[in-house]
Amino acid sequence: MDVISLITDFGYSDNFVGVLKAVILKINPRAKIIDVCHEVKPQDVIRAALLLNDSFGYFPRGTVHLAVVDPAVGSERKMILVKTKNYFFAGPDNGILSLALKKEPIVKIIDVTDKRYFLTPVSDTFHGRDIFAPVCAYISKGYKIDRFGKEIKLFQRLSLPPVEKKSKVLVGEIMLIDRFGNLRSNITGDIFNNFTKSRKFNIQIKGKTINKLSHSYCQAPYLKPLAIIGSFDYLEIAVNKGSAHNFLGAGYGTKIKINIL
Amino acid sequence: MDVISLITDFGYSDNFVGVLKAVILKINPRAKIIDVCHEVKPQDVIRAALLLNDSFGYFPRGTVHLAVVDPAVGSERKMILVKTKNYFFAGPDNGILSLALKKEPIVKIIDVTDKRYFLTPVSDTFHGRDIFAPVCAYISKGYKIDRFGKEIKLFQRLSLPPVEKKSKVLVGEIMLIDRFGNLRSNITGDIFNNFTKSRKFNIQIKGKTINKLSHSYCQAPYLKPLAIIGSFDYLEIAVNKGSAHNFLGAGYGTKIKINIL
Amino acid sequence: MDVISLITDFGYSDNFVGVLKAVILKINPRAKIIDVCHEVKPQDVIRAALLLNDSFGYFPRGTVHLAVVDPAVGSERKMILVKTKNYFFAGPDNGILSLALKKEPIVKIIDVTDKRYFLTPVSDTFHGRDIFAPVCAYISKGYKIDRFGKEIKLFQRLSLPPVEKKSKVLVGEIMLIDRFGNLRSNITGDIFNNFTKSRKFNIQIKGKTINKLSHSYCQAPYLKPLAIIGSFDYLEIAVNKGSAHNFLGAGYGTKIKINIL
Repeated sequence: MDVISLITDFGYSDNFVGVLKAVILKINPRAKIIDVCHEVKPQDVIRAALLLNDSFGYFPRGTVHLAVVDPAVGSERKMILVKTKNYFFAGPDNGILSLALKKEPIVKIIDVTDKRYFLTPVSDTFHGRDIFAPVCAYISKGYKIDRFGKEIKLFQRLSLPPVEKKSKVLVGEIMLIDRFGNLRSNITGDIFNNFTKSRKFNIQIKGKTINKLSHSYCQAPYLKPLAIIGSFDYLEIAVNKGSAHNFLGAGYGTKIKINIL
Repeated sequence: MDVISLITDFGYSDNFVGVLKAVILKINPRAKIIDVCHEVKPQDVIRAALLLNDSFGYFPRGTVHLAVVDPAVGSERKMILVKTKNYFFAGPDNGILSLALKKEPIVKIIDVTDKRYFLTPVSDTFHGRDIFAPVCAYISKGYKIDRFGKEIKLFQRLSLPPVEKKSKVLVGEIMLIDRFGNLRSNITGDIFNNFTKSRKFNIQIKGKTINKLSHSYCQAPYLKPLAIIGSFDYLEIAVNKGSAHNFLGAGYGTKIKINIL
Repeated sequence: MDVISLITDFGYSDNFVGVLKAVILKINPRAKIIDVCHEVKPQDVIRAALLLNDSFGYFPRGTVHLAVVDPAVGSERKMILVKTKNYFFAGPDNGILSLALKKEPIVKIIDVTDKRYFLTPVSDTFHGRDIFAPVCAYISKGYKIDRFGKEIKLFQRLSLPPVEKKSKVLVGEIMLIDRFGNLRSNITGDIFNNFTKSRKFNIQIKGKTINKLSHSYCQAPYLKPLAIIGSFDYLEIAVNKGSAHNFLGAGYGTKIKINIL
């Protein structure tokens, strides 16, 4: 399919993304490159992993997903390439791919080492351009992943904070804030529904109480907070026409509690 | 032509634009997707409508223009699809398409309802991804718009503040500020020229008086304000090598007066 | 190859980049347009020239490189088109192309004047859309550059601050700060290595002293400054997991000294 998706912390104020794409196009002029996000906060591997996890499944089969947030670039950390049932994934071995790889059956993992496919010279600080871009370009052209290094069996995994479940209380926390100020928790729609079933509940966050689940942002009064199962299937706190992040003073790690009444 | 243009308030810090494009590419791998703007201020339907109005005509015939700024997503607001003489337009029925549709002869308007073309399940909060993206992808492949719902005759229109015209005074206001700090008014080049004709005039804004129309930003002294008919054919106030927005303390809604002398 | 690269100061908050691309696609539907950077600070010709210089060589042969940071748009400044051994370059004649053109053997320079290839009417303030976009689109389709105007021999050159070299001291300055807060100097890897050879040295910047060259950001202790030859082959000052820009209070023009011990 020639599709390559990109998630990085390279931003838009430099030329990092542009030259990475140039390298890809030079090797595969037919590549279709889709920017998923380049505004990951510098070195925030967890956010990149969450974004990748939420995004990869929307892409056509065969897409090569490249994720580069790489605080240890130039050190001994591995660079890995993973073939799954439906996709290819590439990135530093720091957990960035690990959330997505929980969902996708893994076929093979390669420790990328074969310098024949890298740019020459390889810089100390920009493996996105010098190693990952060419490797992904070759994969998008159909090269078998075995060419790039040896098979390995293990890779780094991130551990996210767990949802705590008691008989009448579920406690999660805010994992991600979007540009609208919506607060996304680590409680999935499934976890939420299996816990509340048809019982009455309320939701508490930062001293505020929300008594029901809404089905659109407009269902709460103007500038009032509401709870909703968001578009990536997590319990979210939002504010109608406003920012829950600002309104509640809540952020990463803020606890969110569901109480059965 | 397979071209799809995008205007949204989704920003670049999340994965919203990326997954919307993924959905399009999965349906039409030949789609060429052009970002017009994703940095519309959250929920600012008017700015999105202005940007669309200023942009659509530069695109190739047959382009599908998708504009999604949708504060009422998930409520009962309609989603519409409009075929015009030269283009297709898609967006929530909240006025976002209405300025462009003043200029383009309308052929047919469809109320988008046919779930067969939507992603499953449709989320409550991201119809851009779940409804608009697939529908636009199918249109870019040549699907007739009648397939997506029933024809309707009316749609929401925005009303912009009018230009007030007296015999010797024209009063407009600032509608849009660009990244250079240029202040764009609602006075078009035609309105301006038909009013001033060959008469002497001055332009007043925020207590400053400008005595002529310039033809380049360099025609005013360094850091001095000037008036110019901008590249989208509106009367603009700019500052040579500076920001008129900062220099004049002027913004949205600031009045601008043209006086015949 | 149909590849067009873009560097501008148009930003992402308006529709400037989008309509420029629309104009290109209307003329050459096969064009592949790569954004190198649109977040150049308004009117910062030097930064655009540096980014172009660092980027162009990664692109496929035949790429048309368009760079538009154009504070004098609408004045008498020329617009030039340059064919080199491997590429085409287009931009205002204000030095923006000049750093790249030091590296690339020039074949021919054209003063762009032939209105037949421009949009009609040409605006006073957006030659990127009205002149450069169509001209670059035609070139990407294979039009000979002689069609667009007359050959000229001279163009504007930027002069960058020189590196001062004494027997035991090399003095450069910071030229570019990237989004990670890394400080890039005007001292290239070659200049640095030829000067230090195998002699002992230290590096001084803003009262701090660094005693060696690192080969990865992780080689310095957490939040400590380090020196490294960066990915575009300049001596850079960075901070492990932090921003050297913030940590050192250093910015454009800050002096950096290499002392032989």
